[in-house]
Formats: sequence, C-alpha cells, structure tokens
Amino acid sequence: MAKKCLDVTARLRPALRAFEPYDPRFSPVRVNLSANENTHPLPAGLAEAVLDAVRATSLNRYPDPMANALRDALAERHGTDRAHVIVGNGGDELLFNLLFAFGGPGRTVVTCPPDFAEYANFAAMCETPVVAVPRDAEDFSVDAEALLAAAADAALVILTSPNNPTGGLVDRALVGRLLAETEALVLVDEAYVEFAGEDESLAPLVPGNPRLIVLRTLSKAFALAGLRVGYLIADPQVVDALGAVRQIYSVDVLAQAVALTFVERRALLAPVVADIVAERERLAAGLSALPGVRTWPSAANFVLARVPNAHRTWERLRDEHSILVRDFSSTPGLDDCLRLTVGTREENDALLDALSVLTREES
Amino acid sequence: MAKKCLDVTARLRPALRAFEPYDPRFSPVRVNLSANENTHPLPAGLAEAVLDAVRATSLNRYPDPMANALRDALAERHGTDRAHVIVGNGGDELLFNLLFAFGGPGRTVVTCPPDFAEYANFAAMCETPVVAVPRDAEDFSVDAEALLAAAADAALVILTSPNNPTGGLVDRALVGRLLAETEALVLVDEAYVEFAGEDESLAPLVPGNPRLIVLRTLSKAFALAGLRVGYLIADPQVVDALGAVRQIYSVDVLAQAVALTFVERRALLAPVVADIVAERERLAAGLSALPGVRTWPSAANFVLARVPNAHRTWERLRDEHSILVRDFSSTPGLDDCLRLTVGTREENDALLDALSVLTREES
Repeated sequence: MAKKCLDVTARLRPALRAFEPYDPRFSPVRVNLSANENTHPLPAGLAEAVLDAVRATSLNRYPDPMANALRDALAERHGTDRAHVIVGNGGDELLFNLLFAFGGPGRTVVTCPPDFAEYANFAAMCETPVVAVPRDAEDFSVDAEALLAAAADAALVILTSPNNPTGGLVDRALVGRLLAETEALVLVDEAYVEFAGEDESLAPLVPGNPRLIVLRTLSKAFALAGLRVGYLIADPQVVDALGAVRQIYSVDVLAQAVALTFVERRALLAPVVADIVAERERLAAGLSALPGVRTWPSAANFVLARVPNAHRTWERLRDEHSILVRDFSSTPGLDDCLRLTVGTREENDALLDALSVLTREES
Repeated sequence: MAKKCLDVTARLRPALRAFEPYDPRFSPVRVNLSANENTHPLPAGLAEAVLDAVRATSLNRYPDPMANALRDALAERHGTDRAHVIVGNGGDELLFNLLFAFGGPGRTVVTCPPDFAEYANFAAMCETPVVAVPRDAEDFSVDAEALLAAAADAALVILTSPNNPTGGLVDRALVGRLLAETEALVLVDEAYVEFAGEDESLAPLVPGNPRLIVLRTLSKAFALAGLRVGYLIADPQVVDALGAVRQIYSVDVLAQAVALTFVERRALLAPVVADIVAERERLAAGLSALPGVRTWPSAANFVLARVPNAHRTWERLRDEHSILVRDFSSTPGLDDCLRLTVGTREENDALLDALSVLTREES
C-alpha cells in the first residue's frame, strides 16, 4: 500500500540525513567510568537540600525562561552580573545554539581535534563548514600558527580547556592572540576546569573581551550530569542573541531549583573535587607503571591512556571485569587510546587491578 | 576601542536577526490565568510520589537519552509501542525539531492562524516558508479546500486540536483528506485534548497513517508545565529521524522520573480534568451573560472572549484586580479578544466578578 510507505530520509533536510539516533551502548556494569561523571557519593546535606528545593517548587507553572535566580548565583560565583550569563539545557544546548546562531552555510567553525565530538556533529547539523586544525600526534598541543591562520576567516573558534579527551589546558597566550589578531568569536569550553583549579578559567577575561565566550557546566564537578544545566559567560550582546534563539523554557523548574541549591552550597563539593584530583594523580601513576601503557598529563577528571590492543582491552574490561570506560581507539589521532574517568578510590583500584591483568595478557 | 565593539547582529544567521529575547512580562498577581496552566491543587498522594521519585533518582549520571521507561508508559497509555513514541523537552523542542528536520529553505509549512505563535516563530528560525490559511473570522473554522490547495506542495501541515487560542477541535474528515489527497506530513497538536475527551484524539490513527504525527504534552492536563515534557506519537521512521536530530539528553533525569510518576498515576488527575471542564462551561456561561461579551465554544482549558475595549480591560484586570489573562487583541483576526485560562472555582469567580465590573465600565 502506498499509504504505508514513507521515505523519511528524502523528506529530511539534506544536512541531517547521515545522522543516526544516539545509542549510548549502555551496558549494566559494576563500575561505570565511561562518561566523565562524578561518581563520588553526594556530600552530607545535599540530598536533603535537593528534597527541600523540590518541595518548594510548583511544577504546574512554566519556568522562568531566563532562570534569573540561578543566573544571579552563577554571576556571583564568577564575580560578574546577570547580563553576562545565560543558562541552557546542558552545555549541549548552548553549543548547538552557538552553531545555529553564528554558524550556517558560509560561516566557518574551527576546531582542534581530537576534541569533543559534538562540536563537529552540531556544526554538521547547522550546515557549518568545519576547519580542523589537528593536535600534535605526540603531545596533543595546538599549532598556534596553523590555528591563527585557520581562524582568520572563521566565525567561531572552539577550544577546550581542559581538552576532552586529551586532558590538557589551553594556552592562554594563544587565546589572547586569537582575540587580538582575528575577528572570530572564541569559545573556550571549560566543562572540566574545576579539576584544573579555578585559576585556570578564562571567565575573568570575558568583560574585557567581547568576543570571548566561556562555557561551563554543572555536569562534572557539580555532579549533576543528569540534571542538564550548563551556562555561558559572555558579552551581554551574545547573551541576548542566544536568549532570543533558544527554546525559552528549556531549563525546567526542578533543574533550576536543584542547580541553584548546588551552586549556593558549592563549598560542600570542594572536598570531592580535591579527592578526584588526588585520585587522578594516583590513577595516572598506577597506569604509567603498567607494561606498554602511556598516559598524558590531565587537568580534568579523566586520564587518556594508550594501552596494548585497546579495543580488545576495552571489551575485556567490560565483559570480564564489569568495568566500562570509553574506547577512543577508532578516533583519528587516538590509536589504541581509552579514556578513563577518575572514580572513587575503590573504583580506580578495581580499574587498575583489571588493567594490570589485561595489559600483561594483551601485550 | 575596536576591541570593545561587537556587532552581534551582523554575525547572526540572517534568519535570526529579527528575534528578541522572550519576555513573559511576568507580573506578580493574585490570580494568574494567562498561560493555560493547570491551577488546581495537586491531588492527594502525588506530591509525596514526586518526592519518592526524586529520592530514587541519581543526579550524577547522564539521563537515558530516549527516556525509555517513560516512553513505555506513554505507549501503554495510547495502546501502542515504544517505537511510535518520542519524548522531548516540552512540545516546543519537538515542534522545533520537526521544523528543523523537515523544514528549511524550499520546504513549506502550512498553518491555520490564529494558532499557536511558536509555529511561525520556529518556521522562521528554520528558514521555512509559511503558507497561512487563515481561519474564518466569525467561527474560526478552517476552509478545507483552501487548506488542501495549500498543502498540495507542503512538507508539513500543522493543525491544532483543540486550537489555541480559539478552542475548537479539528475536523477529522479534513485530516483524513489531507492524508489521502496530499503527500504532506500532518502534525496535529493535541496539547489540550484531554479537556475535550480522549475520544477526540487522533493518536489511534497513527499506526495506519505514517504521515500523521500527533503532539501531546504533560504541561496542561497533567499539571507539569514547569517540568517540560512533551511527546509525539508518530511513525517509527519519524521517531528515529527526530531521535537522530534532537539534543540527546534534553529531558533530564528528574523530568523523566516525575513524568513517569504522573503518567502511571494519571487516574488521580481525572477528577481535576473533569472539574476544569465543568468550570469551563460555567465560566463561558458567565461570560456570555456579560454586556458586550462574545465567547466561542472551547474544548480546551481556556475560553476566548471578545470584550469591550480589550486591551484596556486586560490592563485594568491586572492593575486593579491583580488578575492576569492573555491579551490577543493585537493578533490579526482576534480584535478585542482575551484568552482566559480556566482556573479553580474561586479563580473563575474572581475573574467573572472583575469582568462584570469592567465590561460595564468599558462598554
């Protein structure tokens, strides 16, 4: 019957035809260190504070579109004002909106892969050409001259600090040169910067540099990956432009209320972040001591490791040890690399124990 | 300093330059009947069930991208299966994604204004030409022949049932003709259909009609406007296409958990819906008895009323009576019209009392 046939692909916008539904390939495992989540238990007091926030929230009324109470708390965190902050449904919504608003056919975005895969995905969805300036194959540093040359005609340059999945920080001087020597908007994605130390953030430079945009999230250090709250610190004109383009109610009342609770009580999370940083160093040292394993210095809550026979090792970690990490071995530039989220001491020990067996067997 | 100047407008995608940040013009009022929210108190047991759902949810892990538990409960509600259901961050995200995926330059969307303003907004953002087939100025009916002619070359036709803000149901036979006589996708937005009776929903027709898409929401009858959960019932190919395009984590863990709680306990909400329907009839009758007031039959949780000097009446309702409704008097086709959400008995009495004074004074 003709009525039953529906060629959806032909009806799709051509730029979207190649995308597949996202499958996180979730396997129930004992230890999940695959998504750079914060796996530590919630500090005392926060769980009850969440319930108090929920009790105080009316679900039947539409949210405040701009999440102004949360925006004010975030502005206070960064010593700025509401006009410089916009909240979104995770960093993802803000990334998409940046590419949707400032990209499009004829506007180039520059990335430095290997980096967060969503940059290229969202650029493709928004029909925005991507100029990739690949990182050094040995140390994942960015070639400053190549980046500046690529940025000369770009609408947007995206740098990640610390970079996911390689772990290093951006070179501040390079960001300064991008702002001084090009006309591009410069997005610095700081999803993981709390694990590097707040001094590493470029957010304080935003007020003096209207083309600098800093992306932050509550998904990592704040342990709220499930809640979907990210934000930008940016020039008020950029904030207003994105405020006009975004889905007006994308951050729901519970996300707003619970995020506010966490931002106000962020001092409670500092010991968790400190423990993750200490565990990161212990995990990296333990990995480096294994035969055939190479790691790179990380300022984030994960460690990139090159291991013997990485894809097979990834499978055996999952199937024989019930430990899930992220397999990057088929990503260009990341041959035989796995990304290991830093977990609790017990989780990291389990991972090290398993890898000490597997790296010996797979060498 | 050149460094301080940033012409954001010139950097924006041209189609987005005219948009302004959304300002809901929120005034703190005693009675807010402006946004078609469900203003009734939560039935006994639901508030505690919300807290139980929150207690059982881990905030630190990413959400299930497809919200499969919720999807299954919604599929069960409609006697279908998971493959026919996709959940989104409110109906808004799904509407945007439909226009983003199936619209774009060269693909036409057909609307029947006056209708939900976001259709035209999202179409403009997605550079999708809109062909408007205006409703009859007297009874807001749709001209079937004009709509069929406009739909002949369209990618997507959007009908709203009950229509916002005019209140009437779609003509089923017209939907049948659109599916039989054109090749367009046909979206029926049923955000308010619970107030018309579940028999009025076209959702049961989806399995036999792959180009029919039905939009539902938990924002209205389910009293969860703040939570941002909408869903489509559609052909599995449409579901898959939108699953590939959408923000993968747009429905957060608390929204998924609380929505599931409400869908499972939907029988508790039936008396609330019944009361709103009874109050709608009482409100409409009271309004019709006022001098110079005209109303239209509504199958939703609001009543459209033409009142003397509507904008002034709207202001005086807000400023003198602390009652907020929605002013549509500057919308083409809705001269002197206000949209009044049906509230609780007390709220509706307050509104009728205030309007009985104002309509006399403004006549």
